[in-house]
Amino acid sequence: MLTIHQVAERLRSFDNTLILTHVRPDGDTVGSAAALCAGLRALGKTAYLLPNPELTDATAPYFLPYEAPEGFHPERVISTDIASTSLFPENAKPYVDRVDLAIDHHPSFEGFGKEHYLRPSAAATGEIIYDILAALGPITAEMALPLYVAVSTDCGCFAYSNTTAHTHAVASALLRTGIDFQAVNKTFFRTKSRKRLALEAAMLGGAEYHDHGRVAVLSVPLSLMESVQATESDAEDLSALGGQIQGVDCAVTMRELRPGVWKFSLRTGPRVNATKACALLGGGGHAAAAGCTVEAPFAQAKGQMLEAIAQVVPDFTL
Amino acid sequence: MLTIHQVAERLRSFDNTLILTHVRPDGDTVGSAAALCAGLRALGKTAYLLPNPELTDATAPYFLPYEAPEGFHPERVISTDIASTSLFPENAKPYVDRVDLAIDHHPSFEGFGKEHYLRPSAAATGEIIYDILAALGPITAEMALPLYVAVSTDCGCFAYSNTTAHTHAVASALLRTGIDFQAVNKTFFRTKSRKRLALEAAMLGGAEYHDHGRVAVLSVPLSLMESVQATESDAEDLSALGGQIQGVDCAVTMRELRPGVWKFSLRTGPRVNATKACALLGGGGHAAAAGCTVEAPFAQAKGQMLEAIAQVVPDFTL
Repeated sequence: MLTIHQVAERLRSFDNTLILTHVRPDGDTVGSAAALCAGLRALGKTAYLLPNPELTDATAPYFLPYEAPEGFHPERVISTDIASTSLFPENAKPYVDRVDLAIDHHPSFEGFGKEHYLRPSAAATGEIIYDILAALGPITAEMALPLYVAVSTDCGCFAYSNTTAHTHAVASALLRTGIDFQAVNKTFFRTKSRKRLALEAAMLGGAEYHDHGRVAVLSVPLSLMESVQATESDAEDLSALGGQIQGVDCAVTMRELRPGVWKFSLRTGPRVNATKACALLGGGGHAAAAGCTVEAPFAQAKGQMLEAIAQVVPDFTL
Repeated sequence: MLTIHQVAERLRSFDNTLILTHVRPDGDTVGSAAALCAGLRALGKTAYLLPNPELTDATAPYFLPYEAPEGFHPERVISTDIASTSLFPENAKPYVDRVDLAIDHHPSFEGFGKEHYLRPSAAATGEIIYDILAALGPITAEMALPLYVAVSTDCGCFAYSNTTAHTHAVASALLRTGIDFQAVNKTFFRTKSRKRLALEAAMLGGAEYHDHGRVAVLSVPLSLMESVQATESDAEDLSALGGQIQGVDCAVTMRELRPGVWKFSLRTGPRVNATKACALLGGGGHAAAAGCTVEAPFAQAKGQMLEAIAQVVPDFTL
């Protein structure tokens, strides 16, 4: 693996560079790629981002100013925040064997690219890009704004456990450039669609509690999705909702994927091993976050999950 | 006003110190006082916090280890995060004229105390306490944990616009001590009571939209408070809820204080001057956050507010 200093040296030698982002692009891949592109241009280089067809209203403004024009033929290719070539968007597939440098923070990084830089302790690839750009010269507001998007989105605005002293140190340096980080926070952390809020309201309104209020079951039947005309993006990460209920250390979210097919997501505290409970129903995951799919009517599916939890939690009472 | 260096010098000379916190104590006053107390003890001094009868489940664990025993007679008195002597808890009133040092960040600080240190640019008094303790010696985890409570709570976990480069730099230094900041985040930012969630769900479920979805009206009638058996603490800061709805730049929250008496809170973007609208109904505040009270049946009170908004917003359409 390269060092930050070596990565900086490579970038000084590169020109006509194309930067790749991953499918279903999030703030980290978009912000990292945009900032890197701005950094390369500050060195006097030609650099562009390969168009990504899945940008959202939130991410597009940070991406589009750097989008490659049709017919751009790169000499060099860099991937940012992409753990696996299977996560290349369709239009990036021709570059699978042409990546000169892969920069990532996912522990699952599969090791593609002629050379790479990987730092799994980083909360965001944006933290790594910051270190690289800082090694190349002064960080401008043009680089800092997308970097703030990258860093803040991957650590839940500094609330998630992946946040480190370095994450905050990077944020401090970015804010020093005078960027409007407040607009980023508003877009990514303090705005929910009306449909999303309607989903959350219905889920909370219909929440069921078991085990002295420690187990909460929230459900998203197809009829709810239809009644609020919710899209997939409205339903993203709904499984986090139950985890914030006071006293709950086992939040069960059941989403109806197709009629009678329920996708369970468990978010648990130390008392409940989520992956053990889900394994009993053919699923898996981590101790604090796991899932499985059950084909059965609502009440029956829910009953199976509660029984599975009861089996792995000694003091569980219905 | 003293400099940080002078404050540090005073603290080196003080002993048997009592530290005061404000009424309705929040994370900043509690965390600042506890950290300062830990810092004084690290210098070999005797120091305690004056008991505060209004601690919450969230703040008490950070306060109680430093609480003064009955009969403690201080030589020195310091106030942390208290803008005015009118905010002294009842049991602190005897010390109103005995404050040796007042440390605060509120622009409205009224200038009490024999000496003081004020920094309105600080997001939290905790940032100032950090600088003081750093001038006195190494920051230990015992100081860092309450300081993280102080800093993070006053800037909404780094999401509010008062967050600065210095806020993040302080957070970075605090995390470097290895504190369990994740437990703090969970308690203060990722936990809501079931009653609070029921209130939010009902408010969102009953939200009304006007002006092409830019104006949202959320209401909290007494009947709702009663039906979910909500307490005052469940209803804190409910006016922020409407502000997160996508497309809304004028969130109106109307809470029934007594039968037929509605307290309006407006949270607005640049298009809508909240204080001008509320002034028409006898209230006031800031451009982006204002309030007023209207005595009328629900529909009539709401109508008066929408008319007031229509008067100050040229392109408003019902």
